[in-house]
Amino acid sequence: MTILRRPTRAGVRDAAAKIAAILPQTPLFVSKIHGVPVCFKAESLQPVGAFKIRGAWHRLTALDGEARERGVVAFSSGNHAQGVAWAARKLGMPAVIVMPADAPPVKLEATLAMGAEVVRYDRATESREKIAAHLAHARRAVLVPSFDDPWIIEGQGSAGIEAMTQMVEAKLADPTQVVVPCGGGGLAAGLALALPDAEIVVVEPEGWDDMRRSLEAGWIEPVGDNPPPTACDALQTKEVSPLTFDVLSRRGATGLAVSEAEIREAQRWAAAKLRMVVEPGGAVALAALLAGKIEVKPGLLIILSGGNVDPQAYAAVLGSKD
Amino acid sequence: MTILRRPTRAGVRDAAAKIAAILPQTPLFVSKIHGVPVCFKAESLQPVGAFKIRGAWHRLTALDGEARERGVVAFSSGNHAQGVAWAARKLGMPAVIVMPADAPPVKLEATLAMGAEVVRYDRATESREKIAAHLAHARRAVLVPSFDDPWIIEGQGSAGIEAMTQMVEAKLADPTQVVVPCGGGGLAAGLALALPDAEIVVVEPEGWDDMRRSLEAGWIEPVGDNPPPTACDALQTKEVSPLTFDVLSRRGATGLAVSEAEIREAQRWAAAKLRMVVEPGGAVALAALLAGKIEVKPGLLIILSGGNVDPQAYAAVLGSKD
Repeated sequence: MTILRRPTRAGVRDAAAKIAAILPQTPLFVSKIHGVPVCFKAESLQPVGAFKIRGAWHRLTALDGEARERGVVAFSSGNHAQGVAWAARKLGMPAVIVMPADAPPVKLEATLAMGAEVVRYDRATESREKIAAHLAHARRAVLVPSFDDPWIIEGQGSAGIEAMTQMVEAKLADPTQVVVPCGGGGLAAGLALALPDAEIVVVEPEGWDDMRRSLEAGWIEPVGDNPPPTACDALQTKEVSPLTFDVLSRRGATGLAVSEAEIREAQRWAAAKLRMVVEPGGAVALAALLAGKIEVKPGLLIILSGGNVDPQAYAAVLGSKD
Repeated sequence: MTILRRPTRAGVRDAAAKIAAILPQTPLFVSKIHGVPVCFKAESLQPVGAFKIRGAWHRLTALDGEARERGVVAFSSGNHAQGVAWAARKLGMPAVIVMPADAPPVKLEATLAMGAEVVRYDRATESREKIAAHLAHARRAVLVPSFDDPWIIEGQGSAGIEAMTQMVEAKLADPTQVVVPCGGGGLAAGLALALPDAEIVVVEPEGWDDMRRSLEAGWIEPVGDNPPPTACDALQTKEVSPLTFDVLSRRGATGLAVSEAEIREAQRWAAAKLRMVVEPGGAVALAALLAGKIEVKPGLLIILSGGNVDPQAYAAVLGSKD
């Protein structure tokens, strides 16, 4: 893919203004941890249950009239699909989502319910990248990547502009440290652009902490072969993008890994203390905090990035104590 | 108890102003049902997980300096206890909460963590009303009832002022119908005062629908002997108060009952669609909507009144499909 431009702070501000015109701010909750007020930005309370709606809106609204008629193509079985479908419907654009044939019926139905066309593929024998590229070419539609795109990164960053405004309004310290779940790094890179004075810490599940290793090494390192199973379906990215890595690396961002048990504990804490449903991948930053891997200090901002759970798996987590 | 005064709309407005000064608005979510935008007021996202914080704040701030030094007494094993403890701590006042000896440890700990003194009693042999009255007398402290009090009713009504403002800001219809969970009727009566142009529908669990029957009869009818078990611990009030009944009756409010299965379905829907943890009693208005007992029309406002769940019981609800 040709990188047309780098994402910028001005782009994040533009995205924030566009998003403020159509979506209410997601709530910012303040909870005292060891007596210090810590802020939680609830992106899980977006209409599609995740921050992905931001990048999708910024990307799709940047298309001109002709491109809007031809529509967009995306591949994702999860939150990005919902974000693109939501934005496309709002703009009256066609959207094709490439999803695995064995995707959970609930995700398929949600995508169809938002008016998107769904093309299914066989995970074992077909490549979703190839199918999406083929569809985009045939329809002259724009392919919307889930993180490797300057508009997507800028759009996700709008969450940081919102959080900053909310912290100022609540008379709290400006964000000094942002702790953020990381798959491909789109949200983390966007927040880094949005909040130039804050320290950025990305959090990944153990064994999937390729962004952490990449930031340490100074170059992109993919996830190793046979990574361990993780409940974080939203964070299973095999390799981050030069765009997101570049932003985070220049900013001196660092990474942390959390265990599956720490993630489950964070999901239980969010339900009990914040009364929110947070999906495993959305809870990793909170997990790092609760596990004592983050120093609690004024200006600490924790991102809860998504709340789309499988009901049975979520019930099992809430019902267990491990 | 001597009723000193009736609750008023001016009192609700006063409460709303006082609460706006210390608490952020709870989010108002809009979700389309049969294509019509329906508003959900998420009182479950209050710091203590329920609207009770409103009435407690309005009541406690109305006390003068001397009364503040002597403190307050309340009896409740649930959300009202948390609300009173929260407000007392914020005002630096002593608070004694009378709780059953067999109350869930998590509720006891939460109340203690907020700095309240807890006096325990034996449900089988002692009367919490008598213990609380005795404590209040001995300490010359003010007894704070959970609904039978003009300040409490006015305070709860502030949720309606907020929702109205939020619906106007979102360019939605003014509230035409408010559907609200009902235990003693404090929240419902407050909303009736806050929103004089809206139809008020109170919702109770089957067998505990004494407010519904009272409104139909034109006089207060208590819950019958041996009411069926219900998961709605927050709505198990044996008899409503003349204060709340009077407000609701004059307004022509009506009532509905929902089944335990309908309540569980509403809890699952709230988790899946709104990504929120809602307790059984907090979900009864939503249950009435989803069960088709409420006509969907513009200006419909559903109150989600609380989110304090027992983790194991909640996990069982999410994991089941009945």
